[in-house]
Amino acid sequence: MTTPKTLAIVGTGMIGCSFAAALRQNHPHEFSRILGYSAGKSSEKAKELGHIDETASLEEIFQVADVILLATPLLVMEKIIQNSPPPHKDQLIIDAGSVKNFVLQVAKKSWKENATYFVPCHPIAGLERTGPEVADPHLFENKRVIITPDEETCVEKINYASKLWQMCNAKIYTMTACKHDAILSKVSHLPHLLSFALVAGQYERDGDSCFQWSAGGFKDFTRIASSNPKMWHDICLTNPTEITNALDDYINDLQKLKSLVQEKRSGTIEELFLQSKEARDNFYQSIDRSKLKL
Amino acid sequence: MTTPKTLAIVGTGMIGCSFAAALRQNHPHEFSRILGYSAGKSSEKAKELGHIDETASLEEIFQVADVILLATPLLVMEKIIQNSPPPHKDQLIIDAGSVKNFVLQVAKKSWKENATYFVPCHPIAGLERTGPEVADPHLFENKRVIITPDEETCVEKINYASKLWQMCNAKIYTMTACKHDAILSKVSHLPHLLSFALVAGQYERDGDSCFQWSAGGFKDFTRIASSNPKMWHDICLTNPTEITNALDDYINDLQKLKSLVQEKRSGTIEELFLQSKEARDNFYQSIDRSKLKL
Repeated sequence: MTTPKTLAIVGTGMIGCSFAAALRQNHPHEFSRILGYSAGKSSEKAKELGHIDETASLEEIFQVADVILLATPLLVMEKIIQNSPPPHKDQLIIDAGSVKNFVLQVAKKSWKENATYFVPCHPIAGLERTGPEVADPHLFENKRVIITPDEETCVEKINYASKLWQMCNAKIYTMTACKHDAILSKVSHLPHLLSFALVAGQYERDGDSCFQWSAGGFKDFTRIASSNPKMWHDICLTNPTEITNALDDYINDLQKLKSLVQEKRSGTIEELFLQSKEARDNFYQSIDRSKLKL
Repeated sequence: MTTPKTLAIVGTGMIGCSFAAALRQNHPHEFSRILGYSAGKSSEKAKELGHIDETASLEEIFQVADVILLATPLLVMEKIIQNSPPPHKDQLIIDAGSVKNFVLQVAKKSWKENATYFVPCHPIAGLERTGPEVADPHLFENKRVIITPDEETCVEKINYASKLWQMCNAKIYTMTACKHDAILSKVSHLPHLLSFALVAGQYERDGDSCFQWSAGGFKDFTRIASSNPKMWHDICLTNPTEITNALDDYINDLQKLKSLVQEKRSGTIEELFLQSKEARDNFYQSIDRSKLKL
């Protein structure tokens, strides 16, 4: 018989509550109690919705919880880590932040050698909607979770973190925090910034009179511009080098495309569009054949 | 009793066949016969699927049809207009191209004063899928069709063109061709180019190893990169000035955003993202309240 364990969700938004709901639904005996903390009122809502059992203070959580998931925006997470006692050997702390090296370094600096009990995680399961109301116990099913430990992270904790995400039916991948941040800056951070910039720029120049002539393409293209501004602000400030590199490459690509259009370089333009369509179609066909959900 | 009329679809793809299917379904007595032409085999497929009654040559179509819809890529349309006899007073020619001033000028140059029987139209109802197989008689329902005549266009023909699109349950708007091209360059042409450029650039640098870490945001953002390369090539070559202007503005916006990230201008970044989210959310809420479909 195992000792009853306590899970705590720090940041009871969509991701945090989905994690709690998935574990409770799929493995009800893993945790006898789920605590939740939020700066605002979302932890009360999360309790009302049954995602957590009790709201709790950060102090209580770091004292009593066996597993803590940090699921706040990144700069809030930084403060929480800096102001919390280091995890001890019977605790596991994981996070769900979209930038990994920043969090890992903050933990190592604040918690010193006890940062070994912290396992940085990134569930690739974002939505443009937020809050406990949109939490879903199925959110992580067949989604990817990237775990980014370093050579000092406790192997037993890595295994337990993986097991918890697998209990949510996620697929686990491991890579270094820096590699994660470089890749995600290209396929996630950059598109979000491009989408925010498109809407903001056109709105500033033309108001929304311009949008009314848009179609489904614009709607899909800008869906991610409805994402949480605070969360994306924090991503920009915690992964600035990779993001500016990705922006540089992209601005370069656009300059080239502009020249092609100006010079009416017919063959090259069609080739570029065809290459793009084929690359995308092939990729999503391979995803459809796999069991992954993007 | 009115004389039985013949409709002809030049370019029997998704748009052309949807127009034929909508008219046949909603107003079966408007046209007694529907002809179709395609350079490839799509007109045979369109006949098989019942969207058109007979395939026909361009020569026959311009001789016998009462109404002709030009629904090919723009540079194909240019050649067809240049090589066809001018419409006569009992004919109406409309098109469905995404760039309007180019088509209008080609028609005026080729057909001289008889270009008065040509009414440039743009149904805002694109899809990234193409071909008669994905045609849908409901495609234009509550969608917008922009009609861009000039002061020389025959009013009676404008009215009949409007009536035909209304028979497809579309909403009709009128503006100048130049205004159309400026607006659409911002809300349609630019996003398509941005999406093509993102996929092509990343694929060139990293192959598709990069895409595999993407999520739903990337998928939606790049959906329009799966659009018809030939069609978008033609849009670039027929609306180059407006497109390069839109690209210039956007590159400028990205340069500014890059500086904000580099300089960690926290307040300005969050404000920009918030403005973008609010502008987008407000716009789509207003669309949800209207009966328009984007």
